[in-house]
Amino acid sequence: MQPPIIILMNTQLGENIGMCARAMLNCGLDQLRLINPRDGWPNKSATATAADADQVIDSTQCFNTLEEAISDCHQLYAATARPRSRQIPALPVFDAIGRILALSETDNEQQSAILFGPEASGLDNESLSRADALIHFPMNPKFNSLNLAQAVLLFGWEWMRLQSKTSNTQSDNRPLPDNPASKNDLIAFLDRLEVELDTGGFFLTPELRPDAIRNLRAIFNRATPSEQELRMLHGVITALKTHRP
Amino acid sequence: MQPPIIILMNTQLGENIGMCARAMLNCGLDQLRLINPRDGWPNKSATATAADADQVIDSTQCFNTLEEAISDCHQLYAATARPRSRQIPALPVFDAIGRILALSETDNEQQSAILFGPEASGLDNESLSRADALIHFPMNPKFNSLNLAQAVLLFGWEWMRLQSKTSNTQSDNRPLPDNPASKNDLIAFLDRLEVELDTGGFFLTPELRPDAIRNLRAIFNRATPSEQELRMLHGVITALKTHRP
Repeated sequence: MQPPIIILMNTQLGENIGMCARAMLNCGLDQLRLINPRDGWPNKSATATAADADQVIDSTQCFNTLEEAISDCHQLYAATARPRSRQIPALPVFDAIGRILALSETDNEQQSAILFGPEASGLDNESLSRADALIHFPMNPKFNSLNLAQAVLLFGWEWMRLQSKTSNTQSDNRPLPDNPASKNDLIAFLDRLEVELDTGGFFLTPELRPDAIRNLRAIFNRATPSEQELRMLHGVITALKTHRP
Repeated sequence: MQPPIIILMNTQLGENIGMCARAMLNCGLDQLRLINPRDGWPNKSATATAADADQVIDSTQCFNTLEEAISDCHQLYAATARPRSRQIPALPVFDAIGRILALSETDNEQQSAILFGPEASGLDNESLSRADALIHFPMNPKFNSLNLAQAVLLFGWEWMRLQSKTSNTQSDNRPLPDNPASKNDLIAFLDRLEVELDTGGFFLTPELRPDAIRNLRAIFNRATPSEQELRMLHGVITALKTHRP
């Protein structure tokens, strides 16, 4: 089984990256990816607060875009304090991990990733639109703002706890495809769809375009198509285009 | 039921006390006691890192000795990274909370407290000897040293989780869009898609057609589109059809 990758997007403080690395290793997670950390990478403050979690810090990968960071992943979960989207399913952390474990049972090579946003603002809608599901941590509703490393720790803790008692994990009854396509392939499909829709005059106004695109992404993320299904969906576009009215 | 009191003994950094207060309130715990914090109390650094957990900071009580701090408590659990004692039972955090919950069921007025030692050294043997049981957090055995506030957070998280588990039966949290389209509308969409694909020459042979149709249906069933999303998908077909190569 592939343990989930932790992805930190636009993190401001190196200290927080280090604290996340430490919390990850506490829970047996060691694959960390960064997207445009504000203070650059490598970062001395991160090394200091990582408290000897060197194996995480030394192997951390740095990317310029979310799309690059998730290109070899098959499932993306985005952590949010309050699930805001109507298009993307929102799961308590327990259920999200149940889904990850269920998927890895059917295919050992499936890679999941968990995305955490910047300290102050959280993830923007554009990034959320790449996620298969939103994860939230059911905290005290009157005081639910978690520090970044605390959120990463709770994810790792639940991962460790639920993985160790696989017999007891909550099952998500939603059927999953055997072999979800990589994010890279899914993004390529969605990019192609957007181009074709532009050509076909789908987007009535430029203002409505971003929302419409987020909605479309949500539908196909939710479906989690397999590689074979993705090839079929490409075929659907091609067939519809060659339609003679 | 009385929620457990958190007791921090000989804490060095005010920052850590503040982080503990924040983590406590995240989990609905608000009674914090300190025993001889190194930098005194009240402490500005603690207030800064508490991030508006004012109700915890403002009501924090400060004591000179462990004995005074626990005088009105009925059960004391001491957190340790590695249970070292042969005389005192050592429990994983889950089991300790199970005991606390069981006790409070028999007597509503029972007060439990959880004791955490100083950052660097942990609790001394004299203090451990006051405990009814030791609590430990099952972490990665190769990297199990938790930051103080992280340990407090994990206790609070498990308290919240196990407490709500005893009162609620687990619900089915299967994610669904707000307003799934009726099966009728979904079938109508799929029927239209099939017709359009026939016209576009999608199905290479009549023999392959039934399988391909089942696959397409599976993708869109899995996505469980809402009414609005279904209208959008109809628009996608229309736009692709009017495409001019």
